[in-house]
Amino acid sequence: MEKTATFRTPKGFLFAAVEAAIKKPGRKDLALIYSDTEATSAGMFTKNMVKAAPVKLDMKRIRSGKGRAIIVNSGNANACTAEQGMNDAIEMTAMTARALGLKAGLVYACSTGVIGTPLPMERIRPKIAELSSSLGKSTIDDVAAAIMTTDTFPKIAGRRIKINGTLLTISGICKGAGMIRPDMATMLCFIMTDACVERSALDSALKTAVERSFNLITVDGDMSTNDTILLMANGAAGNYPITKSSPAFGRFLKALSEVALELSTLIVKDGEGASKFIKVVIRNARSNAEAKRGAMAVADSMLVKTALYGNDANWGRIICALGYSGIMVKEEKTDITINGIKVAKKGRATQRDKEANERLKAKEVTVEVDLGVGKGSATVLTCDLTEEYVRINAEYRT
Amino acid sequence: MEKTATFRTPKGFLFAAVEAAIKKPGRKDLALIYSDTEATSAGMFTKNMVKAAPVKLDMKRIRSGKGRAIIVNSGNANACTAEQGMNDAIEMTAMTARALGLKAGLVYACSTGVIGTPLPMERIRPKIAELSSSLGKSTIDDVAAAIMTTDTFPKIAGRRIKINGTLLTISGICKGAGMIRPDMATMLCFIMTDACVERSALDSALKTAVERSFNLITVDGDMSTNDTILLMANGAAGNYPITKSSPAFGRFLKALSEVALELSTLIVKDGEGASKFIKVVIRNARSNAEAKRGAMAVADSMLVKTALYGNDANWGRIICALGYSGIMVKEEKTDITINGIKVAKKGRATQRDKEANERLKAKEVTVEVDLGVGKGSATVLTCDLTEEYVRINAEYRT
Repeated sequence: MEKTATFRTPKGFLFAAVEAAIKKPGRKDLALIYSDTEATSAGMFTKNMVKAAPVKLDMKRIRSGKGRAIIVNSGNANACTAEQGMNDAIEMTAMTARALGLKAGLVYACSTGVIGTPLPMERIRPKIAELSSSLGKSTIDDVAAAIMTTDTFPKIAGRRIKINGTLLTISGICKGAGMIRPDMATMLCFIMTDACVERSALDSALKTAVERSFNLITVDGDMSTNDTILLMANGAAGNYPITKSSPAFGRFLKALSEVALELSTLIVKDGEGASKFIKVVIRNARSNAEAKRGAMAVADSMLVKTALYGNDANWGRIICALGYSGIMVKEEKTDITINGIKVAKKGRATQRDKEANERLKAKEVTVEVDLGVGKGSATVLTCDLTEEYVRINAEYRT
Repeated sequence: MEKTATFRTPKGFLFAAVEAAIKKPGRKDLALIYSDTEATSAGMFTKNMVKAAPVKLDMKRIRSGKGRAIIVNSGNANACTAEQGMNDAIEMTAMTARALGLKAGLVYACSTGVIGTPLPMERIRPKIAELSSSLGKSTIDDVAAAIMTTDTFPKIAGRRIKINGTLLTISGICKGAGMIRPDMATMLCFIMTDACVERSALDSALKTAVERSFNLITVDGDMSTNDTILLMANGAAGNYPITKSSPAFGRFLKALSEVALELSTLIVKDGEGASKFIKVVIRNARSNAEAKRGAMAVADSMLVKTALYGNDANWGRIICALGYSGIMVKEEKTDITINGIKVAKKGRATQRDKEANERLKAKEVTVEVDLGVGKGSATVLTCDLTEEYVRINAEYRT
């Protein structure tokens, strides 16, 4: 499998991004992703009981398993906007469909930004024609930039695989930096591929890839109203259709999972105010599920996050978080290693905290815990908690 | 019921506090609470799987339902200290028992502070005789000060009730500012009363009082390894024993609950780095349990906490937290009021955010949510999240 940032042009997809003055002036905030032909489509959405209007709309439309276009705005989440919100989401897709000569049911809408304020449709409506007519003038990078909110950089990942002599490209973009936690991380993510994939195989591959990526990250433990991943496979590469039982499925899944993991890693690296990227690895838990639950508790602990920010190998807070996570922890069997330094062995201090504090000055931190009570393991990605996170979120709407 | 801060001297209890150089020099850090006569005793402890040595010891001893003394140190939690930790906890109580001529089984040990470092027994041992011989020279206030860690003020509450002509006093102290979350809040709490209360009535009263107080607060969602509440009732007031069926039980429970609520409120007001005291009131949830769960999700949300810190009535984050809390939320039935200003009505913005932002400049904030789906209600107390919290916890061990 080839891996470079240039795998961003699956065949048969076109992009557009314009300024609609939803965000601050001078920033693109309305974007369009378009497939030349009908794409087999799969989606996953926030599990929050309170869902944004476009999420509700997309959840209905994705039942067809088909799609042609995605219109997305940043700066406003179109969440908690009552009937008006649903009317606006429908209108956005209807106008887009008309401009492109598509059935409205094949157009998806996504929004991200402030909750509780109606979309400024008076500024969006007049831009939809411009958006449609400029298809192909923008790149996937422009769309990745247009969907940013508090993100500090656009997030793109791609993979290319060859199956029976046919090159397949998978390219994804996403946005998200705060309000990040499974299921799913707070974000929008769009993955496009020119592979031809049968619908149930596409659904299944997306579910597995998300389980291995977006459901293993957390920034602040807050799950948003707008989380959406849409995956479109338009078959433009001309490969023989991939089904769940075809030999190529495993390789497609692997490449898709890598794209998803790379995108989710970028989200954590861009975590609001973060100064460190943190990997929490739990081994030998009673089960994989317990390992994940424990890792998530460590990753979400404000006390762990602040200690790591302060270059303090305070493993007491790590074992404490594991202790309240609800999983089996036996103090006397627990080893904790921070950036290669074993700070606790069988639940007891090794007196190597100072060495570990030194190692913590790195930008990347790996916390490894061996629970010694089974064979389950999991890795969760997170970031530290800094004064800057507080500042960003105290001033978000001002 | 009388209420003043002077109700701090239940009959038959003596106090002592000394410096043992466990904390920084010049601060008392070793304290003793002593009852002249055998006190009926009840206790509640952290539900963390990882429990400090003194917690494990006390959990065994409390089964007798009796107690005479509590020895407590701050500056070191004696948690994650393996067999050494248990030996140290036992030794602390044994030395205290010898000095006071008590059975060791009637002495309880509590520790609070850094996790993972063995107790400095070489500094504690020589101080136990001094501690015992100075009993009565210190006040309950001295003990309240000696158990502080990151607390910025000592926490004391008292109530006095008259039952059949006999005056009963209930006085409590506690410590805690960070690593606070039920069950139970991270803290130590000692409540002394001269009331005579039959054992099962005392157990039951404590459980109910904690449910109404310490289990309804959160600072940072982290549950510690050392949480302990001990309640001693020595009967020195000479009242007819209170049982669960006696008419006085309700009044005793009410007074005890008030002491517990006042103490838990003080913990939240002293929340690490907090600039605001926040009350989250949920009404008309499907059940009381759902109301509590929803209120806790709002109170624990870093995004809600930072918004309130920034005087931003960002109710979208409030409804978002309710949405992922796992309770029944119908957007179209939800009203949200912040410091008296209704910012969302039936899930929709009322355009009164600016008024609410002004009101948020107060030091106390009440967030009221009417879910409109049942009759359950709950109130949870918390504080905002500031840069100062991050600073305190990034630098805790340095």
